[in-house]
Amino acid sequence: MDKNLDMDLLIERITDEIYRKLSGDASLNVSCSTGGQTATGYAKMIDHTLLKAAATAEDVRALCAEARANQFFSVCVNPGFVPLSYECLKGSGVAVCTVIGFPLGANTTKTKVFETKDAIDNGATEVDMVINIGAAKAGDWDLVKNDIEGVYMAAKGRALLKVIIESCLLTDEEKVRVCAICKMIGVDFVKTSTGFSTGGATVEDIRLMRKVVGPDMGVKASGGVKSAADAKAMIEAGADRLGTSSGVAISTGCPGKGKCGSY
Amino acid sequence: MDKNLDMDLLIERITDEIYRKLSGDASLNVSCSTGGQTATGYAKMIDHTLLKAAATAEDVRALCAEARANQFFSVCVNPGFVPLSYECLKGSGVAVCTVIGFPLGANTTKTKVFETKDAIDNGATEVDMVINIGAAKAGDWDLVKNDIEGVYMAAKGRALLKVIIESCLLTDEEKVRVCAICKMIGVDFVKTSTGFSTGGATVEDIRLMRKVVGPDMGVKASGGVKSAADAKAMIEAGADRLGTSSGVAISTGCPGKGKCGSY
Repeated sequence: MDKNLDMDLLIERITDEIYRKLSGDASLNVSCSTGGQTATGYAKMIDHTLLKAAATAEDVRALCAEARANQFFSVCVNPGFVPLSYECLKGSGVAVCTVIGFPLGANTTKTKVFETKDAIDNGATEVDMVINIGAAKAGDWDLVKNDIEGVYMAAKGRALLKVIIESCLLTDEEKVRVCAICKMIGVDFVKTSTGFSTGGATVEDIRLMRKVVGPDMGVKASGGVKSAADAKAMIEAGADRLGTSSGVAISTGCPGKGKCGSY
Repeated sequence: MDKNLDMDLLIERITDEIYRKLSGDASLNVSCSTGGQTATGYAKMIDHTLLKAAATAEDVRALCAEARANQFFSVCVNPGFVPLSYECLKGSGVAVCTVIGFPLGANTTKTKVFETKDAIDNGATEVDMVINIGAAKAGDWDLVKNDIEGVYMAAKGRALLKVIIESCLLTDEEKVRVCAICKMIGVDFVKTSTGFSTGGATVEDIRLMRKVVGPDMGVKASGGVKSAADAKAMIEAGADRLGTSSGVAISTGCPGKGKCGSY
């Protein structure tokens, strides 16, 4: 009880403070999430993900075929594979999602903006950007905000924006601040993890992020979501999108990767 | 003996093949390395490196102060920290090095080119790009070459270019092919590793890379170079630049990080 109360107070305090501090930008409206929370199961919540450095065009073609067959929400691939994924998924109803400033987030905002526009030009309709983590750790919230806002403006009206906060590297207070900034700017989703750092999504982080952003924004759990049980736990905690390379196992209710059929 | 002979034949065969295949680009001259191999010790061979996602401006200021005090060749920082490093190092004789398409290398060439120009505009005089690793794994050597060449053209005459081959993910044949392509294009250095994958520099890889590129190009060992003994082994194998976060320990001959003074 006390811990929850403390967290509620913390969220209220930081959210208020950020709204006050950034109120010059009140013209930016909070947009609604377009997350695919349907009654038909997990498939339409899954960003079918392959971000390994050594992934080949053949691997991406297979990923797209799986996404099409299982009617996942999207494939999530590195920017160099957006044109190929776009071609593979034409007419499938499956979106192409990519990653920006990934996985360190330590690029200049200019480069993140360029990469966003380039990805959208190539066919991406969802972009998952990594925040400037070092700026968050240093408490430079203006830089964190301006960096997100740059990408937000580049994607606005053309692609849905998810903001990866890399929760494993942040304190609870830092997570709350970043999520409150995202809500203030009006991005579509906050997302837990790159999958390339020290940890992935946790139920606690999803719960906290959902609490900060409220019911109208998206929350994406990513990193370590490997089974239907993981997916269920994340969704119960407040996630409405799942980034995972185990989409087939999750959507078919298979207990784990490699346990059912060829997957 | 047999193994060495095999490798010599492999290098000769692949180098010949690549020169033949890419000979339309023969106008690109092989440039000379400007690596700082001096008789005065290791300091001028060290790129003092901090690429962690959570590194703060304060951490980078400390890195620059150490680089200045120890007269390292450069600091190697993420692109977002190039302007700060440039300011910190004015008049010090220490260069600013940054990383491009880092650490996955799976960005579009357009984005790598943009990031390169942006970094140079911000004060970087050395850029370490990651190759398109997936293309190398798929044997798409035209894509590997065009990607490197794009960055080469963006950096040409303005900054020295090192090409990170991420040796831990490549077979020996793939390493040879990439190094031969780099030599053909005329980049300044080949570099082993990002430090963010499954392994770092090895003596065997340095030896192989030096053999392929010959005596006039640079070879940078990075990832896991932590002591003066590591440095010595890499240099004896053919490295003329070291990427390390243990520069102070190495240049002062301290046996290892944390063993001498406050470092």
